[in-house]
Formats: sequence, C-alpha cells, structure tokens
Amino acid sequence: MSQTVTLSTNEKLSAIAGDFKGKDIVSLDQLSADDLHRVFALAGHMKQLVLDKEPCQLLAGQVISLLFFEPSSRTFGSFASAIKRLGGQTIDIQNPETVSSVKKGETFEDTIRVFEAYSDAIVLRHPQPGAARRAAMCAEFIPIVNAGDGNNEHPTQTILDLYTLYERFGRLDNLTGLLAGDVLNSRTLHSLLRGLSLFENNTIYLLSPEKLRLKREDLALFRSRNLIIHEITSEKDIPRDCQFWYWTRIQKERFDSISEYNDMVAQRFTVTPALLAQYAGQETIVMDPLPRIGTIDTEVDKDTRAVYLRSQIRNGLYTRMALLALVLGRA
Amino acid sequence: MSQTVTLSTNEKLSAIAGDFKGKDIVSLDQLSADDLHRVFALAGHMKQLVLDKEPCQLLAGQVISLLFFEPSSRTFGSFASAIKRLGGQTIDIQNPETVSSVKKGETFEDTIRVFEAYSDAIVLRHPQPGAARRAAMCAEFIPIVNAGDGNNEHPTQTILDLYTLYERFGRLDNLTGLLAGDVLNSRTLHSLLRGLSLFENNTIYLLSPEKLRLKREDLALFRSRNLIIHEITSEKDIPRDCQFWYWTRIQKERFDSISEYNDMVAQRFTVTPALLAQYAGQETIVMDPLPRIGTIDTEVDKDTRAVYLRSQIRNGLYTRMALLALVLGRA
Amino acid sequence: MSQTVTLSTNEKLSAIAGDFKGKDIVSLDQLSADDLHRVFALAGHMKQLVLDKEPCQLLAGQVISLLFFEPSSRTFGSFASAIKRLGGQTIDIQNPETVSSVKKGETFEDTIRVFEAYSDAIVLRHPQPGAARRAAMCAEFIPIVNAGDGNNEHPTQTILDLYTLYERFGRLDNLTGLLAGDVLNSRTLHSLLRGLSLFENNTIYLLSPEKLRLKREDLALFRSRNLIIHEITSEKDIPRDCQFWYWTRIQKERFDSISEYNDMVAQRFTVTPALLAQYAGQETIVMDPLPRIGTIDTEVDKDTRAVYLRSQIRNGLYTRMALLALVLGRA
Repeated sequence: MSQTVTLSTNEKLSAIAGDFKGKDIVSLDQLSADDLHRVFALAGHMKQLVLDKEPCQLLAGQVISLLFFEPSSRTFGSFASAIKRLGGQTIDIQNPETVSSVKKGETFEDTIRVFEAYSDAIVLRHPQPGAARRAAMCAEFIPIVNAGDGNNEHPTQTILDLYTLYERFGRLDNLTGLLAGDVLNSRTLHSLLRGLSLFENNTIYLLSPEKLRLKREDLALFRSRNLIIHEITSEKDIPRDCQFWYWTRIQKERFDSISEYNDMVAQRFTVTPALLAQYAGQETIVMDPLPRIGTIDTEVDKDTRAVYLRSQIRNGLYTRMALLALVLGRA
Repeated sequence: MSQTVTLSTNEKLSAIAGDFKGKDIVSLDQLSADDLHRVFALAGHMKQLVLDKEPCQLLAGQVISLLFFEPSSRTFGSFASAIKRLGGQTIDIQNPETVSSVKKGETFEDTIRVFEAYSDAIVLRHPQPGAARRAAMCAEFIPIVNAGDGNNEHPTQTILDLYTLYERFGRLDNLTGLLAGDVLNSRTLHSLLRGLSLFENNTIYLLSPEKLRLKREDLALFRSRNLIIHEITSEKDIPRDCQFWYWTRIQKERFDSISEYNDMVAQRFTVTPALLAQYAGQETIVMDPLPRIGTIDTEVDKDTRAVYLRSQIRNGLYTRMALLALVLGRA
Repeated sequence: MSQTVTLSTNEKLSAIAGDFKGKDIVSLDQLSADDLHRVFALAGHMKQLVLDKEPCQLLAGQVISLLFFEPSSRTFGSFASAIKRLGGQTIDIQNPETVSSVKKGETFEDTIRVFEAYSDAIVLRHPQPGAARRAAMCAEFIPIVNAGDGNNEHPTQTILDLYTLYERFGRLDNLTGLLAGDVLNSRTLHSLLRGLSLFENNTIYLLSPEKLRLKREDLALFRSRNLIIHEITSEKDIPRDCQFWYWTRIQKERFDSISEYNDMVAQRFTVTPALLAQYAGQETIVMDPLPRIGTIDTEVDKDTRAVYLRSQIRNGLYTRMALLALVLGRA
C-alpha cells in the first residue's frame, strides 16, 4: 500500500568524486586529492572576493541552519560569515539550551528532519561522535556539513589547514612538517595526517612525549599511505627544513601525576621565540587550530611566520565559502 | 496641555475581516473562514516560490524581531526561515537569559515598545497566557504575531494544521477526523476544533481515556458551532473513513498513579503500523504537532500517510510566509 | 628576520577629527562638536530612510560581528536593527556562554583577532572597563564600536541622548537641563555632562541627595569646560524653564540603611504626573536611558513630553546607523 520514495542517503554520503552538489560533508575521507584541489581553487577566488569587498549574491535566497548542539563561537562565526559574505542567510541555533525540542524529548533525527524542512543546508556541530553521519542518514534532500562531531571529525578544520599549506607552498606534496603535542589523542593531528597522506612524498616529524606517541597500528597505516614518518621526543631533533610546525595542546590529565607532567611536558611543548630561533627555518610557518592554550607564547604572534591568527583563521572563511558554494550547487 | 495621539489598539487587534495589513495575529478567533482561505491561497504561492528556489524580495528592507521569552527552536526556526525566504531580516532574541532588560526589572510593556522602535513586526513567544494580547495592546504601530503564549493560543500552529488538511483534501468542510490523546488539556486540539468549527459539516471523533474527555461546556460549544462530535474511548471505535488522525501526548502526571496510567494509556495511545493497518483508511493522513513523545512509533515514519515530518512541518513555513506578507502589507 | 607590518592602532583610536572611516569608536572623547554635528546630520537622513520604508543597500556585503560578552537585549537589538536596515549582515554572539573559546581559556585578544578575520567591524559589549580599548588595540584592520564596557563608557548612548536634544531644540548650546538621581555614580550622566560641555553656554541643574553629589574634582572639571552647574537637593528648586529632564536610578545599596534611603529618596526621585505638572515647562522633554526602574511612573508615558519610549529610543537606531555608515566608509 503505502510506498516511500527516499533518496539514497548512501549517495549523498558517498565519495565526492568530482561532484559536490547535494553531497554531505561528513568526513575528510570523502574527498580525494582532486576534490581538495577543486576546493582550493575556489577558495582562492573567495579570498579575492572578500578582499575586493564586493557584495556577492552567489547564495542569494539560500537559507542555511547553523545547528549547534554545543557552543563553538569560532566555528559558528566562521560559517556564519562564510554564508553571509556569499549573500546567503542563516537560522542560528547556537545555544544548546534553545534546542528546546530535544530538551522536551524529541529525537535527534526528528530535529534534523524539522530543520531540513526549513533550510537549504544544515551546518551541524554536535558533541557526540557520529552525529554528523546520523544527520546525513536522515536528511533526504539537503546537504549536511559536519562542523565537528565530538572527537570524531571536523573536516573543514583539516581542509583549512591543508589550504594554508597549499596557499603558502603552492603544493601539498614533497613537504616536510612537524606535528607536535598530543600525537596520541589529537583529532586535529590525525585528520591532518590523513589529509597529507593523500599526496606524494610528504615527510612528517611527530614530536611528543613517549607515552603520547601515535598508536602502532595508526603509524603503520599512515606509513602504508605514502607518508614518511619520524617519531621524535626532543625538540633537539626537529630538522631545520620544516615547511610548517603544527602544535597541539597536551592536557595534564594525560599523565599520572603533576610531577610526571612537569618532567615530560611543562615548558617543553610551548612555542617560544627562543625555540623558533633555534629550530625553525626562515620559511617555517607556525600553525595552531586555536584556541591556543599553553601551546604558543604570545610573544610569537608578531613573528610573520606565525600564521594562526592571520592566514590560517582567514583561510577557514575562504574554504568554508568554497565548500558551501560547491555543495549548494552554486559553483 | 500634553496630548497623546494613539492608534486604537482595538483596531489592530480586531477581526481581520479581509484586511490583514497592520493587524495583530493574537488569536485564531480573529480569522473567518474567508480570511483563512486567503492565507491558504497565498501559502500555495509561497510553496511554489520555495520549490522554485528563486530569491524573493517581498520583505526586502523589513526587519522583524523574533522575541522569544522561552526557547522553542522549531517555532523559532520556522519563523526565521519564513522571513528570510521572503528577503526580510530578523533580530534574534531567543534566549530568555538575554532578555536582559527584563532581568534588570524592565516591564514587559517597555520591552515591547523598545523592540517596536527597532522593528516592522514582532513575533512573540512567551510562557504567560495573554502575553500576546498585552503586547498587541502596547505596540501602537506594528503588528504582533503570537508564536505561542503559554497554554493560551498558538494560532499559526492551527493555521498550518488546517492548511495541511485543505491542501490534501481541497476543502475544510465535510471532513471526518480523529483527534486523540489528551482531549481535555491539549491546547492544540482545542484550537483545531475551533478552526474546524468555522466550516460546514465536519465530523470529529474524540478518542481519549474517560477522565481526559472534553469539558462538558466545551463539548456543547463546539456542537453548537456546526461540529458533529463523537466521543470514544477505544481505538476499536475509530471509523475507517477518517481523512485524518491527529494525535497528542498524554502526560503521566494526569493520572493518580502509574498503574492507572499503565491501565488507561500505555501502549494504547501510540500510533503503530499495526494500529494504522487495522483502523486507518488508505487516504487517512497522520498528523502530530511535534515534538512527538510517545505518540507515534518511528516505524510509522516511512508510511506515506505520515505527514508530520513532511508536508505538515513544511506547511508551517508556507503559511507563516503568507501570514507575514499579509500583515506587513506586502501581499 | 621576521618583520611585522602593523597599522598604528593609535591612529584608529585617535580623535575622529572629521574622518570617521576606519576609526574605532571607544570613547566620547574622540568626538568634537563638529564630529557630533556630522553624525547628527546623517542621523536625520537615516530617520527619513527608516520612515520611508525603502530598502537600503548602504552596507550591502558588510558583515559585522555583534560580540556581546554580557547580555544587553536593548543595545543588541538597536545595533542589529541599524545594521540590517542599512542592508548589512550580522554575526550574532550574544550569549556569554557561547563565547566558548573564552570558556576554554582563550584570551580576549585572541577572540577579537579571530572575529576580526570574519568581519568588517565589531560591535563590542563587555562587562570589564577598558575592554573596548583593549579590543581596539589588537584589531588592526577593522573598527571597534564600544557598545558599553562596564562602568567605563557607552558612547553611543550619549550620542543618542545629545541627538535627541539636538533634534528637538535645533541646537546643543544655550540649553537648560535637569540631571537627576545618582549624580555621583551614573555613567550615563557623567557622559552626558561631558557631551554637553563641548557646546557653549549650557546650564545644568544637578538634583540628587546630598551624599550622591558629583565629586568635587569632577564638578570643577565640568565648570572649567563651559558648563554652568547648579547643585540642588530638592525638586522645589527645579527651574520652570528646563528644556529637558534626564532622570537616573538611585540604588538602595548606596545608603547605609533602608530608613536613610526612605528618608532621602523613596517617592522623591520618581517622575510623576504631579511632579511634571508642578515643575516642568510646556516644552520640557523627559528622558531616561532605560530600563527605567522606579525612575518614571508609567502614568507619565502618555504625556507627549515623555520621549524615552518614543524619539529617544528611535534616535538610538538612527544615530547608530549613521555612526556605522561613517566608520565603515559608506557615508
């Protein structure tokens, strides 16, 4: 009797493979090197558009829900600006307390379908790993863009990190970089490794305390995917020819005692002018996913090699503009 | 000496009577059958406009305050989308904590007059019954649209419910429907009964536990207003020829004990595929004001007769677009 | 090696001196009488634009962050409306809880630089005195507009107050006015005195309890800056020829005991119809920065001399539109 016509959600969630229109962006794994280059090329145009300060109507008439189940003012602001700079409009749900239907007992899936009815796309932030995939499975007609789902994925962060490298060095292969800090647990570092592994001949130095090294199976995986990886435990082993440093925070809770933390980490996993002077090259750029908490001394800010509050944060805007234009079929 | 020129607020709050421009929408009682048909005709155009994905400038230059004194993400999102799809702009006050002037001791009336000065209309959500009328009484120059004032009224909910019936069946008279659940207390059901009573020859089956029947005076009132009402207490008495089922939640707190609730309600006031198979017709549509909490099994979602997450929620957008365009004098 | 090119923030923060474009608006002291007249002239045009209800594109393509570290729904609404009536867009961060990066430990300066990357201007509300200046010091490329930083400054409040006088009387010199209430502590009154002191031959009556008089050094300062000041402690000494009354709240906490408060203040520092009838002139306008809490009886509202819920609040919209258009270089 009653028949249901449903779009295959697998298709929306599948690899981009050159065709962004209508696709969900849930995981970095959906994007190939070619897909990333397409985003980067468009991001370059977006940058010019912002610098020219010309009103743009690319997303005119589009209404996009910013559905934030946990606060994240930076990511929220970046997406909101991206949409509005393209002439689109937003529905802002940024305080978890106001997702009132959920408080009343509505399922997450019902909330997604309700906002699907109001919107041309949903940008979703959620504390639970896998939430973006669940949303993509139930939204039939519009793209879901993952703006971070717990410790699972935050694909637009990695896209902006890769674009920052691409923009500076004109390529994403044959790079040498340092990833430092909590190599074992950092979602951001793992995603960046996955992104870099899509390109040829990249050499990565992983600097961390011994107990925060990459899991052995992850190390094997990334090595099998083109990456040349060196694990180091002392800043003394950072090579001078790194094109980039990417620093992440080490939480005290990772250690059994404060004294172990003090021995292993304190004072040693913070970028200072002295550290830069001793181990960085003239062209080494210093990156940070922000917020930086103990990772980079503010004295480093005025060094032009520090890009975290300059091109890196701005590239988040340009790449999100590009990605939204693509999935909404406007570019 | 000092003289005051004040618009008669009675005029703004009066029956629409064919002229929406500048009127408040506080109560369903302001609208006649003809007024509703005018909204429905325009809602049909709005639906086409949304489906065509063409940017619209009908509310260009209009700034509308969404003044939400209690959270309601669904209603907020629906109004925000309605305004933005018509090219209008919003001032979002959706977190009660941020209505800071009220926290500091400002009267509700002062807050309304302040936001009147900033806006072309105010969409008001408030936990207190009568708040929308109070707002309408003090806003002199712009329309107030009631987006729910406590257990009093939520007129746009009823308008979208009626439109959902109208769109599907091409009429609002000569219908047979089932309203089930907390018939005694549900604001939504009472409003829907009032709406249906504006049209000829509708037959309504009210299904509820004995103790949650309509008040006798309300029953008499609705019967005096054209409605043919049958009260039933068992699903076995649902007639096969219902055009629609409208299900509402029964709260445990309505019963003296959990065992009474379990006897009377549990498992019996939830729509399941089995219930549909046994008692619904081929054309019976299943409605719910959402959030659904225990009222409808998710297994029912894929049945095409289930409209609550499909046309019903989308019709909220189209009818709110229509209503806003009308009170703002743009249609 | 690494070189930094930084705009002189002193230049952005300096006196306006006829050139608003790109300047921060942190303090009233940046504006001369000529600068204020430029704002007022433009505010007049803005008023006409709003009254004509014509869509305006002056800020088309501009994205402005409303960064509110404490709730202030009235100021938020006024700025949001000003931006949107000019065709601009906003990024709304109005709930302090959602400034999540700060919660995570990000410095205020980093947050400002992140939002600078997303925006063409930042409107900042912050509970800490001096926050606006700190923001202006670290935002290199875009203007910061102070929307109130603790008990320090709220320059747009004073600009709207002065414009309200200017609009009504056609001048800001040769006025006689009453400032009443907490003359010792009110930020609003102090700023208004500073504003009025920029113009010639104004006479101000300061009405307060003895213990809430202006500090002697402030009194001397304002007298040295053109103002003719009379301190009074009884309403009986209010002259009939005041062009305006500006009333502010006296908090009970200012007194050692409730009985002292009752003796000194209660019933005496509230504007009532009787007080107006006895001491105000036919042309005296009654102003209040809102929210009014105990300062003005609601019975006064219908008196046409009461402008606080009429022109005064609307002038906040017009002057903010003017100021934003000026600092963004669009007027």
